[in-house]
Amino acid sequence: MTYLPDPKLDLVLERTIPVSPERVWAAWTTPELMVQWFTPSPWKTAKAEVDLRPGGANVITMESPEGEQYPNAGCYLVVEPMRLLVFTSVMGADFRPVSPVNGADDLPFTGRIEIEPTPGGGTHYRAIAMHADESGASRHAEMGFHDGWGAALDQLVALMG
Amino acid sequence: MTYLPDPKLDLVLERTIPVSPERVWAAWTTPELMVQWFTPSPWKTAKAEVDLRPGGANVITMESPEGEQYPNAGCYLVVEPMRLLVFTSVMGADFRPVSPVNGADDLPFTGRIEIEPTPGGGTHYRAIAMHADESGASRHAEMGFHDGWGAALDQLVALMG
Repeated sequence: MTYLPDPKLDLVLERTIPVSPERVWAAWTTPELMVQWFTPSPWKTAKAEVDLRPGGANVITMESPEGEQYPNAGCYLVVEPMRLLVFTSVMGADFRPVSPVNGADDLPFTGRIEIEPTPGGGTHYRAIAMHADESGASRHAEMGFHDGWGAALDQLVALMG
Repeated sequence: MTYLPDPKLDLVLERTIPVSPERVWAAWTTPELMVQWFTPSPWKTAKAEVDLRPGGANVITMESPEGEQYPNAGCYLVVEPMRLLVFTSVMGADFRPVSPVNGADDLPFTGRIEIEPTPGGGTHYRAIAMHADESGASRHAEMGFHDGWGAALDQLVALMG
């Protein structure tokens, strides 16, 4: 947990949850579990593809209530089981840069999921979204980062707690 | 050396050189050495800043014959001494995405330096520039990737051989 967030560029969701580090890690890295909690209802996760290694790609396909699918591709950067997962939207498999797919709507960020055991067997959980500049951070905040990532975490706790 | 380049998206410089893997690695990772070979003459490297760890930033400042300086920032992704160095221009320190600084002139790529010992004590050297799309790769080729990276490698061999 040595990373110090930048309040101008980073969005942070920090909470202590009654789920063990092992189960938080499993929820974040197992496709069969990811599809059950990752996307806030009434949207859902249609599919999760995970190649869990630095340089491995992931594709998480979200589905709207109307049934439209939105695949989100990324790349894992740091994989430290039960401790730290870092991934980014600006690269794909083997760290290849991605072209912005959505033009001005594209929101490049790096995600950092920090997991720390608490004395009671739970987890001190910190999720950070890192952006290139202040406009990226404020746009992500306006898009509902805190509500969205918070609601997804509620679903993780309901599933794994 | 398990990475298989994509001929449409990657540019590759591959050569066997009479420099040991230890000295190739040193040339690529030691600021005092980098400034002596990294930029093809008559340009030069004014400064090299290196934080050699996954997520560590680098800034290499090139200088034109007229004395204008051009800093290039990046981030290390894989650091396997004497074997493999992977870095990218699309992130800075702690894997934070970077804003394109040069607009349409910006050339996002990930670099992959593969180092393999040869029986004679030299190195089989493979440098790969990975791009997001074909236009990035062809633009990098037109900018002189092969001549430029080749001339820099000549300078590395002259310095370290």
